[in-house]
Amino acid sequence: MTAEPFDAVDVIRAKRDGGRVPEDALRWMVDAYTRGYVADAQMAAFAMAVLLNGMERDEIRVLTEAMIASGERMSFAALGKPTADKHSTGGVGDKITLPLAPLVATFGVAVPQLSGRGLGHTGGTLDKLESIPGWRAALSNDELMAQLSDVGAVVCAAGTGLAPADKRLYALRDVTGTVEAIPLIASSIMSKKIAEGTDALVLDVKFGSGAFMKDIDRARELAETMVALGADSGVRTTALLTDMTTPLGLAVGNANEVRESVEVLAGGGPSDVVELTVALAREMLALAGRPDVDVAAALADGRAMDTWRRMIRAQDGDPDAPLPMPRETHTLTADRAGVVTRLDAFGVGVAAWRLGAGRARAEDPVVHAAGIDLHVKPGDVVTAGQAVLTLSADDPARFARALESLDGAWEIGDTAPERAGIVRERISA
Amino acid sequence: MTAEPFDAVDVIRAKRDGGRVPEDALRWMVDAYTRGYVADAQMAAFAMAVLLNGMERDEIRVLTEAMIASGERMSFAALGKPTADKHSTGGVGDKITLPLAPLVATFGVAVPQLSGRGLGHTGGTLDKLESIPGWRAALSNDELMAQLSDVGAVVCAAGTGLAPADKRLYALRDVTGTVEAIPLIASSIMSKKIAEGTDALVLDVKFGSGAFMKDIDRARELAETMVALGADSGVRTTALLTDMTTPLGLAVGNANEVRESVEVLAGGGPSDVVELTVALAREMLALAGRPDVDVAAALADGRAMDTWRRMIRAQDGDPDAPLPMPRETHTLTADRAGVVTRLDAFGVGVAAWRLGAGRARAEDPVVHAAGIDLHVKPGDVVTAGQAVLTLSADDPARFARALESLDGAWEIGDTAPERAGIVRERISA
Repeated sequence: MTAEPFDAVDVIRAKRDGGRVPEDALRWMVDAYTRGYVADAQMAAFAMAVLLNGMERDEIRVLTEAMIASGERMSFAALGKPTADKHSTGGVGDKITLPLAPLVATFGVAVPQLSGRGLGHTGGTLDKLESIPGWRAALSNDELMAQLSDVGAVVCAAGTGLAPADKRLYALRDVTGTVEAIPLIASSIMSKKIAEGTDALVLDVKFGSGAFMKDIDRARELAETMVALGADSGVRTTALLTDMTTPLGLAVGNANEVRESVEVLAGGGPSDVVELTVALAREMLALAGRPDVDVAAALADGRAMDTWRRMIRAQDGDPDAPLPMPRETHTLTADRAGVVTRLDAFGVGVAAWRLGAGRARAEDPVVHAAGIDLHVKPGDVVTAGQAVLTLSADDPARFARALESLDGAWEIGDTAPERAGIVRERISA
Repeated sequence: MTAEPFDAVDVIRAKRDGGRVPEDALRWMVDAYTRGYVADAQMAAFAMAVLLNGMERDEIRVLTEAMIASGERMSFAALGKPTADKHSTGGVGDKITLPLAPLVATFGVAVPQLSGRGLGHTGGTLDKLESIPGWRAALSNDELMAQLSDVGAVVCAAGTGLAPADKRLYALRDVTGTVEAIPLIASSIMSKKIAEGTDALVLDVKFGSGAFMKDIDRARELAETMVALGADSGVRTTALLTDMTTPLGLAVGNANEVRESVEVLAGGGPSDVVELTVALAREMLALAGRPDVDVAAALADGRAMDTWRRMIRAQDGDPDAPLPMPRETHTLTADRAGVVTRLDAFGVGVAAWRLGAGRARAEDPVVHAAGIDLHVKPGDVVTAGQAVLTLSADDPARFARALESLDGAWEIGDTAPERAGIVRERISA
């Protein structure tokens, strides 16, 4: 006889048959899975049942709380200043954390960005920053607190102590076709952010070909679910639904994305990157009790750049060192005059990944100088022979498969597409 | 890079999203699972997707063929006589194989009943026969063929070489809440029966509280699916839908079910056991090319009993040896006069299991003398104080939990319930 209070098969069946899983049974399931009592196969069947039958809001809250309870909780209360964090669901060319963290910290709000590495067609923030000579992602807890107190902004590797149940469950979902369940995505993201202990959180929930959610309705459902979870846990949370049908900015890769981020911090940079950086900064600052500051001014007058330089130096990086340059490049040109009607984020993301900017397996390295530079964006007028994209790699053998991904990924037509802003909706509790 | 032609996640996703799994991908999935390349967690997620989204007939056929292909195939062609087999989906007091196999063999049809042990509230045919002193379930292939040739009837343990993919998948389904999927049940049963090599197969598909399928519509769906699979594979197959709302016969256990089977073979026994034995025998004989024989006469005149005795002796059993008797008994009596309106198969089955007639884990032994004897059946008139059920066990400590299962499992009222035959429908290709 077992001393366990529940049976995994009963929990699986409850969800399989479309019912609610009782709160204590759901907490047990997560705890028993973390302990290894509930097997991967049982959790996989449960995850599939959740994907197909859904979960009520209250179940998602309990699931999230159970994942938080599986590990340690951090607190930034000792800092004596407000904290605000941002999470993006991932996109192509999404380097927003790089200008955003120092920009928000400039206004006295601490920004603890515990980040990850890239896997698949979207890059990882740590991979991008590791292009900077000397910069290190791993900080001790004491180093993290000291840097938040002193500089205000930190981008570093998330420790393994936060929500370990999520770490195990995420790896399982990845191999069992159960990644796409909104209750599981929402609880995965929010358990880590709530355990981290931020006061305020802004979610950048992307939709479109380059995003995890292809359509805005699913993105909205995810955003609403996460905003509600934040509210339940006392973390002030809002979400922006942002367009990811075309890459963000003109650089997709690692070193080139750092370069573009520095341009934004210098008061320039592509308009869409600036728009999104400013919009997210305003949300974070408003939630942190600084609603009336002039965000754009801090980019224009060099204050955000100053914070950036201090942030990079605090983690042993040299903000003045030259970034890695590619050994090989290959440029694609327009075969006719016209206007760019489409430049597909997914195609560009997969191509950059195949060039070496991303990794196929968690243990693979990335090539920091690999990636794609865009010379035009949808709506831009081109002449025949004008450069559209430049591919960079350390080995020209990489170009062939990257070019396959770009086949059909861009179009030149006669009529300019409608232009819309990056930020489409705002979701608050 | 892997040399595998498919990716398990793609197969899982296809079924998750409600689509068909392409034939070659499905065959690969089963083969790769058998080889251990596809993990239990992946197959569990797939099984849950099948349970919730279903499979088309053609997919079920491919799944069944793939499970057959995972192991060896037997053939009875060398016997030079027709073969017929029966499979029951399991019920309480279901000892039909015991009188049925020798009865059918009496008419020159070989009956190779490769059977299993019980797990849960329904008993196992091998467990029942092992009540007979000396009888052994394990036969070599040569012994099996010799006995089929000589006696005509064999009930023995199924070898592990038939459909090993099913063996692994069944164990997985048992712990992941995915037992109840009709495509998986049908392919599990039919892969073993088709691999076994019988010419004809009669399925006893039960419905009601004591059966796996609680309602007749699900039982019909399962029966139709299996009959179609038989036809696809060239095995002449029919199914009877039979009532399992109340136990079959008056004995539920092991030794007492053997005793009741011998009564049927002696021309007596409870009418429902006789009805079902004769109905299944007629189906088997008709499919085997003997449609016009007088089945009931072979019970009445001792020919079937003679085959039974030869069958038991061929496996080292002594048909004349006394069967084990219980150490402890406990009788329940009617608290009022009236008519038995309900005697629930599930409650009785669980009670017998708790008395020791069944096992909780595959490695547990069973108690051959444990079980329940029914003194009445629904529709029978009782007086106050009349015996209704007698519980048997080797340890009186077993009675308490068994009585819990019987609480509410039977009712005495004023109006006799409608009597209907055991066999409700016949399904043929």
